[in-house]
Amino acid sequence: MSDFAFTLQARSGRARAGLLATPHGQVLTPVFAPVGTQASVKAVSPDQLAALGASLVLANTYHLHLRPGAERVAELGGLHAFMAWPHPLLTDSGGFQVFSLAEARRVDDDGVTFRSHLDGSPQRLTPESAMSIQELLGADIMMAFDECASPYDRRRIEDAMVRTHAWAERCRSAWSRKDQALFGIVQGGVFPDLRLESARFIADLDLPGIAIGGLSVGETKDEMHSILEILDPALPEDRPRYLMGVGSPEDLVEGVLRGIDLFDCVLPTRLARNHAALTRLGRLHLRKAEFSADPRPIDAACDCYACLHFSRAYLRHLIVAREMLASTLISIHNLRTLVRLMADLRQSILDGEAEEFAARFRTAYRKHRPSEA
Amino acid sequence: MSDFAFTLQARSGRARAGLLATPHGQVLTPVFAPVGTQASVKAVSPDQLAALGASLVLANTYHLHLRPGAERVAELGGLHAFMAWPHPLLTDSGGFQVFSLAEARRVDDDGVTFRSHLDGSPQRLTPESAMSIQELLGADIMMAFDECASPYDRRRIEDAMVRTHAWAERCRSAWSRKDQALFGIVQGGVFPDLRLESARFIADLDLPGIAIGGLSVGETKDEMHSILEILDPALPEDRPRYLMGVGSPEDLVEGVLRGIDLFDCVLPTRLARNHAALTRLGRLHLRKAEFSADPRPIDAACDCYACLHFSRAYLRHLIVAREMLASTLISIHNLRTLVRLMADLRQSILDGEAEEFAARFRTAYRKHRPSEA
Repeated sequence: MSDFAFTLQARSGRARAGLLATPHGQVLTPVFAPVGTQASVKAVSPDQLAALGASLVLANTYHLHLRPGAERVAELGGLHAFMAWPHPLLTDSGGFQVFSLAEARRVDDDGVTFRSHLDGSPQRLTPESAMSIQELLGADIMMAFDECASPYDRRRIEDAMVRTHAWAERCRSAWSRKDQALFGIVQGGVFPDLRLESARFIADLDLPGIAIGGLSVGETKDEMHSILEILDPALPEDRPRYLMGVGSPEDLVEGVLRGIDLFDCVLPTRLARNHAALTRLGRLHLRKAEFSADPRPIDAACDCYACLHFSRAYLRHLIVAREMLASTLISIHNLRTLVRLMADLRQSILDGEAEEFAARFRTAYRKHRPSEA
Repeated sequence: MSDFAFTLQARSGRARAGLLATPHGQVLTPVFAPVGTQASVKAVSPDQLAALGASLVLANTYHLHLRPGAERVAELGGLHAFMAWPHPLLTDSGGFQVFSLAEARRVDDDGVTFRSHLDGSPQRLTPESAMSIQELLGADIMMAFDECASPYDRRRIEDAMVRTHAWAERCRSAWSRKDQALFGIVQGGVFPDLRLESARFIADLDLPGIAIGGLSVGETKDEMHSILEILDPALPEDRPRYLMGVGSPEDLVEGVLRGIDLFDCVLPTRLARNHAALTRLGRLHLRKAEFSADPRPIDAACDCYACLHFSRAYLRHLIVAREMLASTLISIHNLRTLVRLMADLRQSILDGEAEEFAARFRTAYRKHRPSEA
């Protein structure tokens, strides 16, 4: 564990600025991690990813376990070498995907049996196998295997939480590669008492980091915010806090204001492939005819490769002409937008002005939002 | 025309090394030009294109005329600005695409009436409109509007050649932007007497460059080679010679050996999207299962971004997982392979050893070719 350390550098209100040291380099927090589900951030090359300022990338254990297999990735030098990302990497545990993608799923106390969404082949994941798969992949941060349940069903949420806690203990016991950090996951749906119970249990495991799972899965924004507010004082100050699967600009700002350090989401790259560009004033749907003669970049305030070189008119042309470059350029822009937003938030925390930054952001975002399509 | 000049630097046998100066920079010849049909080299960004050593890029007048329209491109600053390629650009005349893509085509002596392959809209191109479209696009090199006919039908080939000559004269008359160079096109199918007649006619127009059209459209390699051998002494030494639509490694070598300076082709990027990687030892079909655990780069002799960072196993994984990055990386590799081949050929010409280089290339290529699938 000597290679992994989290240093809290500043707080502004509940917002935190920190430094996460990993064997593959440092991550300044708060940070947004682009998602490379199948060991590739879709439509973006690793050098483009590094150039836009990404510092931490997430890959999905479920997908890589099914294809090409963790042993294969290990034979090829581990995930960093395989995908040519020599910087910090995080793998999830596969839990979320098993519960959202896999078929014919059966959960028991020992693990989950399911069928691959790719070929229907029978599969089984347990806390121990999720750890050994992640150790073969070799990311800097691994996640404990958890059970996700729909957020409003208290009985099922409670069962899933209890199981998640038992599985987190088993993951901690199975964890052997100490050059990889293991994060536990807090569950509990929208129920404050369960969330608090889960936070205390996971905190007591004394793992290098703590994730908050089971949010952004159907609950309202107010519910998400109130859960984060309940959790903030219950989580240890000296560990990074990771809000899983959250990545809209507004959610990042509200999460950071409530004490979150790490985020990941497919949203910026998925939106890009659907021709939507993120800005701090809302989204631009670049396929619209109104952009066909627009000489402006997506966002005059942005310094990404796309905004420095290409007009909205060109991007719209690429979209209409079905050129792959459209997905690449808009993905670069969307990711850069989130990287810049997090850097600016971090600076505002260091300056002790996070709430002022958030207030300005909310005003601008709200004002322009009606122009979204 | 002061911005455009061709300097012949060396000959080795019939092979030529030269320097093409354009308003947007120099091109060392022999050169292979990647094709950006719709103002984008498919799956590759302009910075990746520059990094792999591309110096001249081709865009298609037919496609850009139909969408987004040349006036639109001109309003947005011209094609260089539109597609963010500040280096030399060439546009074809639209002729070839009208004869290969457009529907309900009718040719008369004045021009061609056809329907757009995109929306069926009625369209007409004449030598004069092809020139005005290309002047709006603003590429460094423009092509005269020509008629392409199938290579073996002597009567139709002869008619098309006569028309191509008349149209070349009209293009020369319509040519007003002298910061753009106009190339004439030699036609004549597989008929030596027609090719010679066409070469003399086009040479007499005294244009800044001469293209050879109507090859690589169904004739045999031997026929292509013999036409090039017939044309070489008939073409002026002091003008660049451009063999249109040719781009396999073997065709580049054989073309250069027969006095060609410029080539373009969609082949390297189209093959890449079909998972085939070019090497000097033949093609690798990277989807094959034999590559699933192969830790080697596509080509150990290649210095492209893909070969420096990624294994065949990773590329195969991307292909099987349908990740866009596969097309990007293999396109980069294939284009770099042709750029390196042309650079090595150029050096062999400067060293007076082009025939020896070609002999070694042919031996290696022939030896490994049976392993192609």
